[in-house]
Amino acid sequence: MDRRSLIKGAGLAGVLAAGVAPAVQAQQAVRWHMASSFPKSLDTLMGSAETFSRVVKALTGGKFEVSVHAAGELMPAFGVLDAIQDNSLEIAQTAGYYFTGKDPVFAFACAVPFGLTTLQMEAWRRQGNGGKLLDEFFKKYNFHALCAGNTTTQMGGWYRKEIKSPDDLKGLKMRLGGGLFGEVMAKLGVVAQNMPGSDVYQALEKGTLDATEFVGPYDDEKLGLSKVAPYYYYPGWWEASAQFDFFINNKAFDKLPDEYKAAVRAAADVAAIEVTSKYQARNPQALKRLRAGNTQFKMFPKPVVDAGFKAAQEVYAEHCDKSPEFKKVFDDMRAFQKEQILWNRYSEFTYNQYINGAKL
Amino acid sequence: MDRRSLIKGAGLAGVLAAGVAPAVQAQQAVRWHMASSFPKSLDTLMGSAETFSRVVKALTGGKFEVSVHAAGELMPAFGVLDAIQDNSLEIAQTAGYYFTGKDPVFAFACAVPFGLTTLQMEAWRRQGNGGKLLDEFFKKYNFHALCAGNTTTQMGGWYRKEIKSPDDLKGLKMRLGGGLFGEVMAKLGVVAQNMPGSDVYQALEKGTLDATEFVGPYDDEKLGLSKVAPYYYYPGWWEASAQFDFFINNKAFDKLPDEYKAAVRAAADVAAIEVTSKYQARNPQALKRLRAGNTQFKMFPKPVVDAGFKAAQEVYAEHCDKSPEFKKVFDDMRAFQKEQILWNRYSEFTYNQYINGAKL
Repeated sequence: MDRRSLIKGAGLAGVLAAGVAPAVQAQQAVRWHMASSFPKSLDTLMGSAETFSRVVKALTGGKFEVSVHAAGELMPAFGVLDAIQDNSLEIAQTAGYYFTGKDPVFAFACAVPFGLTTLQMEAWRRQGNGGKLLDEFFKKYNFHALCAGNTTTQMGGWYRKEIKSPDDLKGLKMRLGGGLFGEVMAKLGVVAQNMPGSDVYQALEKGTLDATEFVGPYDDEKLGLSKVAPYYYYPGWWEASAQFDFFINNKAFDKLPDEYKAAVRAAADVAAIEVTSKYQARNPQALKRLRAGNTQFKMFPKPVVDAGFKAAQEVYAEHCDKSPEFKKVFDDMRAFQKEQILWNRYSEFTYNQYINGAKL
Repeated sequence: MDRRSLIKGAGLAGVLAAGVAPAVQAQQAVRWHMASSFPKSLDTLMGSAETFSRVVKALTGGKFEVSVHAAGELMPAFGVLDAIQDNSLEIAQTAGYYFTGKDPVFAFACAVPFGLTTLQMEAWRRQGNGGKLLDEFFKKYNFHALCAGNTTTQMGGWYRKEIKSPDDLKGLKMRLGGGLFGEVMAKLGVVAQNMPGSDVYQALEKGTLDATEFVGPYDDEKLGLSKVAPYYYYPGWWEASAQFDFFINNKAFDKLPDEYKAAVRAAADVAAIEVTSKYQARNPQALKRLRAGNTQFKMFPKPVVDAGFKAAQEVYAEHCDKSPEFKKVFDDMRAFQKEQILWNRYSEFTYNQYINGAKL
């Protein structure tokens, strides 16, 4: 059809239509489903999914909608990766280290023992090689990842008895999160226990469970574990920070018009910075409440952390031997981390040494 | 005009036009100017402005354009606040503490001596009361602020001679950045020198200047000062972090359709997280290069930092006495900081104590 003749014949309405034609193309209605690996009770984490959805909608005048589904609503918590891989889900909100059973490389997307802190992780993923290397690896699962936030440094979990030496870990029945940390703890003699979160309180009370790790004060406070496991250890050396991600199916993403692609990327950043700030703001308040209650805060004795460090290096060496892909990502992360630690000594760490001891 | 009759008469083109009418309203062309207080040579900082512009454009299909102008192009570096206030500029990229001459409250938007670190600042501005209190204050200047990034912890500057005790600061001719820091240094006997950045090298060489502070390794490296002022001190206790902002004229913002408002907010977050990560990734690399050269890294002796700390508390007390508005923001920031420091001891700081000393 001759475009000019259309305009000529259509009067004002036709001119309008011709003038906005490219915009119409970009403004198609799109509906995505997001499946999360997290339950609604983790409101800070889930807030990141909801913010993502709200911002995508706002940026596209309501035309691109992403419905958010907590773990179990559309599929089991850890079913999201398979759904992404077989192109039946557009986007997941999850943590890479849940999938180390498929491949240990997944751990680097979230947290590894004695790994990067929050700003270091952001820098490695966004400005170092971390993001590139991981997206390369994720390709075979048909997705790429965008940061959805970070819990910041986690606590070391709740224990019925004090951990005074590495020997106290031997035979300890502990509920553990995902990742390489389980392998490290196994080397230390810990016996990993699998159970739903809802059973933890009773198991600790009965003594069929000796310890459990979770997140940090804000999330942990809700579990009310201080009565059954009063010793709350720090720091969580296996999660110096824990980034969670949006896994975005590549096929679904490629189909989007450019404006919607930009909206997805921008909304992820809005969500990420919001939730990281929330953890940073809320953890201290929960910490104060826990300290005022029955919880006894204990620092891991150095020999315990040393034993964990030694075991972690063994785990890394084993995986590097087995998998060149693991070695590639590990070596890059480790080199980046060494530079960061050097700089940290000249900057924030040294400042904190002063201010943390100052009388404000 | 009867809308239905228009559609009826217009055929296909008319139907298209009627169908996209709301989108057309939201898709009007908008052009903003952004004036920065920073020169092009600070490529990391300027990158934040360029990213903001690029993302706003991408999110709006090219219809909302923000032209970026380095310091001096449209107006002098520090003329941006007046332009924003008299509604002749839509958006500025600047640092709050450049405007403490107008009101010392401005300093809290960027950095105050012995203030918040990067994640703490993000949390205070976004999730604590910091953002709300400051935007309330900024109203009289007709703008609100969105974070444009953070330099992370800065260095303490370049010195021709070693600073071994607080006495070495007395009479020291030093070029200083903005903010309350100048008042603190005046109490310590430092004589502030005003000069363009381009004169600093020669002044240090001649000895008409004894010292200068700037940013961190990545930005400072370009100045090439190690030959004329070889002592590079840390940590920059007056800039534990330094946030810079987009100042957004309220009138211009209110006129935007909702989608464009969302685009402005999201683009600011994209820019902020990008540039903070850049500083985090680039500073260690520049640090290594500087260490390999003539630069001598020196930690400020504790008595010097103690003297700075005491002087800073005096400056705060004086301003709190004079201004209830200052006191309101200061008290809130300080209370937030105390909570953060408590949490830091249980989390990242304690982790860093271990990992910074570990043999990786």
